[in-house]
Amino acid sequence: MNVDIGNVIATADSHGLSEAVLDRLDERVGRAHERIDSGLANREFGYASLGLPSDTDPTVIRDALARFDPDAVLTVGIGGSALGADTVTAALGLEGHYTLDNVDPVYNRRLLERLPLERTLVNVVSKSGTTAETLSNFLVVREALAAAGVDWTERTIVTTGDSGPLRELADAHDLPTLPVPDGVPGRFSALSPVGLLPAAALGGDVDGVIDGGAAGRASLSPSLFETPAYAYGAVAYALENRGVTTNAFVPYAESLEPFGEWFAQLWAESLGKDGLGQTPARALGATDQHSQLQLYRAGRKDKLVTLVRPRERDDLAIPDTDIEELSYLGGKTLGELLDAEFEATEASLAAVGQPNVRIEVDRLDAEGIGELLYGMEAACVLCGELMGVETFTQPAVEWGKRAARGLLGGGDFEEADAVAEKTVRWIE
Amino acid sequence: MNVDIGNVIATADSHGLSEAVLDRLDERVGRAHERIDSGLANREFGYASLGLPSDTDPTVIRDALARFDPDAVLTVGIGGSALGADTVTAALGLEGHYTLDNVDPVYNRRLLERLPLERTLVNVVSKSGTTAETLSNFLVVREALAAAGVDWTERTIVTTGDSGPLRELADAHDLPTLPVPDGVPGRFSALSPVGLLPAAALGGDVDGVIDGGAAGRASLSPSLFETPAYAYGAVAYALENRGVTTNAFVPYAESLEPFGEWFAQLWAESLGKDGLGQTPARALGATDQHSQLQLYRAGRKDKLVTLVRPRERDDLAIPDTDIEELSYLGGKTLGELLDAEFEATEASLAAVGQPNVRIEVDRLDAEGIGELLYGMEAACVLCGELMGVETFTQPAVEWGKRAARGLLGGGDFEEADAVAEKTVRWIE
Repeated sequence: MNVDIGNVIATADSHGLSEAVLDRLDERVGRAHERIDSGLANREFGYASLGLPSDTDPTVIRDALARFDPDAVLTVGIGGSALGADTVTAALGLEGHYTLDNVDPVYNRRLLERLPLERTLVNVVSKSGTTAETLSNFLVVREALAAAGVDWTERTIVTTGDSGPLRELADAHDLPTLPVPDGVPGRFSALSPVGLLPAAALGGDVDGVIDGGAAGRASLSPSLFETPAYAYGAVAYALENRGVTTNAFVPYAESLEPFGEWFAQLWAESLGKDGLGQTPARALGATDQHSQLQLYRAGRKDKLVTLVRPRERDDLAIPDTDIEELSYLGGKTLGELLDAEFEATEASLAAVGQPNVRIEVDRLDAEGIGELLYGMEAACVLCGELMGVETFTQPAVEWGKRAARGLLGGGDFEEADAVAEKTVRWIE
Repeated sequence: MNVDIGNVIATADSHGLSEAVLDRLDERVGRAHERIDSGLANREFGYASLGLPSDTDPTVIRDALARFDPDAVLTVGIGGSALGADTVTAALGLEGHYTLDNVDPVYNRRLLERLPLERTLVNVVSKSGTTAETLSNFLVVREALAAAGVDWTERTIVTTGDSGPLRELADAHDLPTLPVPDGVPGRFSALSPVGLLPAAALGGDVDGVIDGGAAGRASLSPSLFETPAYAYGAVAYALENRGVTTNAFVPYAESLEPFGEWFAQLWAESLGKDGLGQTPARALGATDQHSQLQLYRAGRKDKLVTLVRPRERDDLAIPDTDIEELSYLGGKTLGELLDAEFEATEASLAAVGQPNVRIEVDRLDAEGIGELLYGMEAACVLCGELMGVETFTQPAVEWGKRAARGLLGGGDFEEADAVAEKTVRWIE
């Protein structure tokens, strides 16, 4: 993974980051790296995530899958239990991965009607084994399997922690299980069985993804000038301090759309605390040039636009045409058009002083997505260190969980009372 | 469409909008409504969009489609030429609509390999007829049809303006065409043939969508207290002035995911100008409670969280379970769980003073999505009037278009030179 920070550096007529600012920041990066390195070496909570590439044994995943040869994999999980798997399968171009992460009755019924249930592997993922959405969906899926005459115990694999209802269920029915690795929050688990199992089940090059992650780990050093991931995290931090409170994340590849969602969780849930944290705004190039670029260029200068692309990709020629206005496109390729739009967009932002960073990998293959996942995780951890927040927790979501549980009769929670006392002002 | 602004109203211990602020704002809403109403009556550029429900004749769409009976519709368009069609087909639960809006060679090749080309209607949409992405993709599609032995002139319908290469092509080959209505920017064209054709081709209730839009139009009045759409637009405006520079748009329905993308374009491209404009951050409930909620609740209070849901939906029971920790879910439905999470999230944001608004329609049927589309358009136009920006143009995207065209050898543009002069600072 390579990062070009040229468009956030101060020039004579811009308000970017000066070399002196970067140099001072680099001293702090050095200290933050020490902290990260020691947390990683000791497998401390959260920091352990950065050890995943070498801690994940793909043969364990393959062994757990040995009894299955599915046409489709249905992941039942939410948030960090689903987005990594979506990201990896999409980036590898694997078809047949479906996710039940929402509890939308209309959507879920339709998906279950459409799936070839007797040829589907059900992949249930919840560290605690108590996630309301995941367990509700699993109960619904189990009933659908039964209705289709499929023995759910023959088609289900479970990824969960050492204890909890899912672990007990798996033990009781002798289901194959995989562990959620110790010390790894869900949003950092893409390079563990949580993120890799569906890809492995569908024949994806999981070893390559792990290799890409390992390359990311090998690239960590005490200097942002030597470490692409740290350069990105440090620049994001320095810009946020200067009022750049949005991170518009724009991969130029359809297969990276789930990667954008994964990044949005990583960034929001890790750094959104103590009144801080950039808001991720997901977009996709080149499509969203026709949707978001007007705002990025002419709105507030409060956005870091993160442009991501592969350096090479399989291409497709644009046929010649006798339409005169379009003759300049004939003989070109879609890839050339996409690259021209990438560079034009980047320059159009730079021309108005809108900060942007370019991230590139060689190809969007298994190694490439492994590098991107690891790189963004390392960037996020570094950014959290510089911000001084607790990167690996998500305490603010508990209030709503208790309120919802109370509303559903799952106990007496004062948060549920607040729902009933809502200030209402309907405009009808 | 109903809008509940209770959670942005000032209470004793909050910094919301006071009744006095809303009253003063309402005077300005009255004047803005006069401007909008007169622009609409005279079908002025942009304002004409709000007349679409009655200006769109669904029989014209059906007549143009009479010769086709497709299994799939492939829309070749980008931005406003694609997002409305995606929104309507998804909201109506219609299967078989595919979109080529990006120029990703890998994705596009795979999609064309997968489609039943001899049973696919190719729906090319570009007002100017010169959009580089759309025309390039159309050339690629035409070649794929030829390679599959399909006569493209028998499978193509064109929606375009009165002149330009696409109009000439349609005339030369006697293709059925539909007009892009006069005075309607792409992002406001969802209730025209641009947004409705794919749904109509797939048997959707296009009349119902138009009826929903008409109900939205009938609801417009000179007061925000009487007009849900204006209440939303006025609140967004007042909050942006108070530092709420992000609009986190969170429908609680999978079928509204494209609606979120459509809204993001509408809001960003219409209001993102003159250094103003909220940044749309797309999310989806309940899924993104496990991704974005930590940030929304514990980050900066710079977000308007827009929560959208239907009041009724077809439901799905959660089976009973003997797992004790989950027994509270048994006998409930997925819809009840989703609603509990919606209300819990809303209350959890209100409890920390994070502004949020609730938008509801009766059902997510044809009328419901028509109401939502019209309501958000009217809200956007009102917000633009209050902001004093030119809601209906998008001048900031032109620079990049010229740069890209120059890079591709389509003319001599100084913007392309700026690309070559980029400040580069690779971290590798």
